[in-house]
Amino acid sequence: MSVIDELLANAERYAATFDKGTLPLPPAKRVAVLACMDARLNPYGLLGLREGDAHVIRNAGGVVTADERRSLAISQRLLGTREIMLIHHTDCGMLTFTDDDFKRQIHSETGIKPDWSAEAFADLEEDVRQSIARIKADPFIPHTDIVRGFIYDVATGKLNEVPV
Amino acid sequence: MSVIDELLANAERYAATFDKGTLPLPPAKRVAVLACMDARLNPYGLLGLREGDAHVIRNAGGVVTADERRSLAISQRLLGTREIMLIHHTDCGMLTFTDDDFKRQIHSETGIKPDWSAEAFADLEEDVRQSIARIKADPFIPHTDIVRGFIYDVATGKLNEVPV
Repeated sequence: MSVIDELLANAERYAATFDKGTLPLPPAKRVAVLACMDARLNPYGLLGLREGDAHVIRNAGGVVTADERRSLAISQRLLGTREIMLIHHTDCGMLTFTDDDFKRQIHSETGIKPDWSAEAFADLEEDVRQSIARIKADPFIPHTDIVRGFIYDVATGKLNEVPV
Repeated sequence: MSVIDELLANAERYAATFDKGTLPLPPAKRVAVLACMDARLNPYGLLGLREGDAHVIRNAGGVVTADERRSLAISQRLLGTREIMLIHHTDCGMLTFTDDDFKRQIHSETGIKPDWSAEAFADLEEDVRQSIARIKADPFIPHTDIVRGFIYDVATGKLNEVPV
């Protein structure tokens, strides 16, 4: 049995007690959360989010690339969100390698050099500020007055705001 | 008080009872979930995921672009995941517009034409299969033997597998 089969058994239990069938498409709290994909960071538990509350966008590092700018533009323009919350975290995998090393390793294994930047970073706070700056500079995201960045501490469970 | 302040109050409660401080960086279940950012889709509740279990990658539509291929490559190559689970859902915002219309609207409002594809789609099952195909065709994601796609029904809470 694959892990996915195990998760599907959980999904059957979720559906069996499901009572959220009338929620509207636009997020009730009008907020988009952009966080790292890290397994230890659970935005639902951490922020008390419930079904229907918020858009949740995630990737390796919680960084802002073209695809996050696309998702944020759709979130605000078509579905009415107004605030953006960025979450990086301590002990992040993105702190453990460099773009050059990772791409060189893939190049040597596959014979092809990746056509993307790995978006590794060496300083958490600096990368949160970089992400905020990329969002504020984007011409297609209309509401950038409330964009706040945080670092989640995986050892303590605390969420700390990054000073701008 | 902004919505983010409200979520921060929840985060303080989370930290006050936090007992997960020793989880390892690699996901315990060795699976990466790629899902739509939709507010009604809660992967933790649905799949029974707990802190430490899985990478969760999300964007508008749950589509596969360069940034998701980057995240999946990092997830498998650096953090040991082996299975990939894709989740689209019914009543998705991506079914309500076309790339051309959305980009034309942004172009007329901002004077600039977006440099990304909005990745809108007209058929859920077809887009899930498209996402699987993009992953299997990627030269940098090493483990693509277990890539399964699902559609979450926001009205019933059920998760249905897309036949390949």
